[in-house]
Amino acid sequence: MEVDQVVPLPRLPRVAVCGGTHGNELSGVYLVRELLKLQREVMKKEQEEDLKPASVLLVLSNPRAMQQCRRYVDTDLNQCTATLYFLSPSGPLSDMAPYEIIRSRELNALLGPKGSPAAVDLVCDLHNTTANMGLCFIAYSDCDWICLHIFRHLQCVITLNLNPRSAAMEIGPQPHGVVRSNIYTAMKVGVQHMLDWVRLFNSGNVFEGGFVDVFTMVKHIDYPRDSETRNITAAIHPCLQDRDFCLLHPEDPLFQTFSGETVRYKGTEPLYPFFINECAYYEKGIALSLARKRHIICHCAFKD
Amino acid sequence: MEVDQVVPLPRLPRVAVCGGTHGNELSGVYLVRELLKLQREVMKKEQEEDLKPASVLLVLSNPRAMQQCRRYVDTDLNQCTATLYFLSPSGPLSDMAPYEIIRSRELNALLGPKGSPAAVDLVCDLHNTTANMGLCFIAYSDCDWICLHIFRHLQCVITLNLNPRSAAMEIGPQPHGVVRSNIYTAMKVGVQHMLDWVRLFNSGNVFEGGFVDVFTMVKHIDYPRDSETRNITAAIHPCLQDRDFCLLHPEDPLFQTFSGETVRYKGTEPLYPFFINECAYYEKGIALSLARKRHIICHCAFKD
Repeated sequence: MEVDQVVPLPRLPRVAVCGGTHGNELSGVYLVRELLKLQREVMKKEQEEDLKPASVLLVLSNPRAMQQCRRYVDTDLNQCTATLYFLSPSGPLSDMAPYEIIRSRELNALLGPKGSPAAVDLVCDLHNTTANMGLCFIAYSDCDWICLHIFRHLQCVITLNLNPRSAAMEIGPQPHGVVRSNIYTAMKVGVQHMLDWVRLFNSGNVFEGGFVDVFTMVKHIDYPRDSETRNITAAIHPCLQDRDFCLLHPEDPLFQTFSGETVRYKGTEPLYPFFINECAYYEKGIALSLARKRHIICHCAFKD
Repeated sequence: MEVDQVVPLPRLPRVAVCGGTHGNELSGVYLVRELLKLQREVMKKEQEEDLKPASVLLVLSNPRAMQQCRRYVDTDLNQCTATLYFLSPSGPLSDMAPYEIIRSRELNALLGPKGSPAAVDLVCDLHNTTANMGLCFIAYSDCDWICLHIFRHLQCVITLNLNPRSAAMEIGPQPHGVVRSNIYTAMKVGVQHMLDWVRLFNSGNVFEGGFVDVFTMVKHIDYPRDSETRNITAAIHPCLQDRDFCLLHPEDPLFQTFSGETVRYKGTEPLYPFFINECAYYEKGIALSLARKRHIICHCAFKD
């Protein structure tokens, strides 16, 4: 395939921006609230500029977790929506169903139902991380041309190969339960760029092809743990902390134990670490993830 | 009073170091666990060096909150212990009593009972903050000579004028629910310095007098909030974020609203901000606290 190949793509009449999927990741919570306030003004501006408006659905995904300023109430909503996508979204729910399972049904009805003509065409889910990852888009395929073109406006792409046409905007470092103005503003600019791209695309603009660097996840690494208690016995090494997307070589320091020893990276391949010391991943057994960097073609694209 | 005045002080046979009072402030949790492992070796070293050993009681204050990686289960243990100190510590408890009230009774029995001859002589409570405060000691009086002498080994002192002979070691920035190796190590060094001071003091060393800079809390400032929903409508201004203990002047930027406007400090007196953007204080209605800096005499001290 050539770099100047042209790909016709379906237009994106319905876009959803979701904040508060994790109730303590506050940039998305406050940004969606602000966008809800501004939505009328934005629609007015679109009409004045004669752009074909995208219908932007603004969603606060997990209001109960937001109220408690926790990641989730009963179970991680991220995993619920993934599960619901792959399993049946319509079976009966018991009275004792976890809150997030009930909520994911509501979201499926609001944003979908998946596969139906009424479903939104692009979902952008807003997240924060305690890792020093800057502004990243996490897409679920490396041949989703729409996401790749949006990503070309932005800093960094990770592909996780999970499921179609939705992307997470992940930004850090920010402690969960805290809103930092610089991180909020960067997310606001990121979302504005994404929505601008969608409006231009829907209005018939042609987007040039080119190359994009993406990071494809290879594996996770857990903390060293006590074999009996399963408590962690080390933290991320100071030489690695905050060095997301900086190449990690074999024998580089990985962890520092609580008694002061250095634990080194024993892999044989240099890889790119990300999600280094993400708060929510302690319970998942992930101290950091490692990725390969790839330089891929992003074809010229326009609305079919 | 002269700077060369000499103050005889009672020795400190029993010292307590407490971690996990807030279950998601992880430096103290992992440091107390590590010190428990090392306690036998430390006692052996003290005997070899012919120092009079201080009995160091190591306590994990809120195990249930630690297990859930939350600040508290039912109510803030910090406030429970303060309440118990000022109110009756011995009345009967209902079966429905909040976990932290029950736990504060247990801690009172372990560390006290307050006012009894068996009570510990010094409590050091280990905390983290998301604010960029470095390593701070928070004492509850500015004429507690023992705390002032310990503080002279350290970076910063805040006095809150609350209650006697206990101090908090507060260190940040670190997200709650995360352990950063550099912060852990700084706390470890701080605790070692404090315990070294106690051992030398108990062994008869005389500590020279001098001056100490302390920050005395003047007031708290809340976030701007929506008058109906009480949601915050602004974050700490980027020019103020991470500038703890840097003088804030009238008309300096204080907040940036979610729509981008700057809100300025309207006080008439320049003051020192601290606990800027502490995660746990959103629910307390505190965006930052302001202090006056004072230069106070710390008298020469020795064990009576």
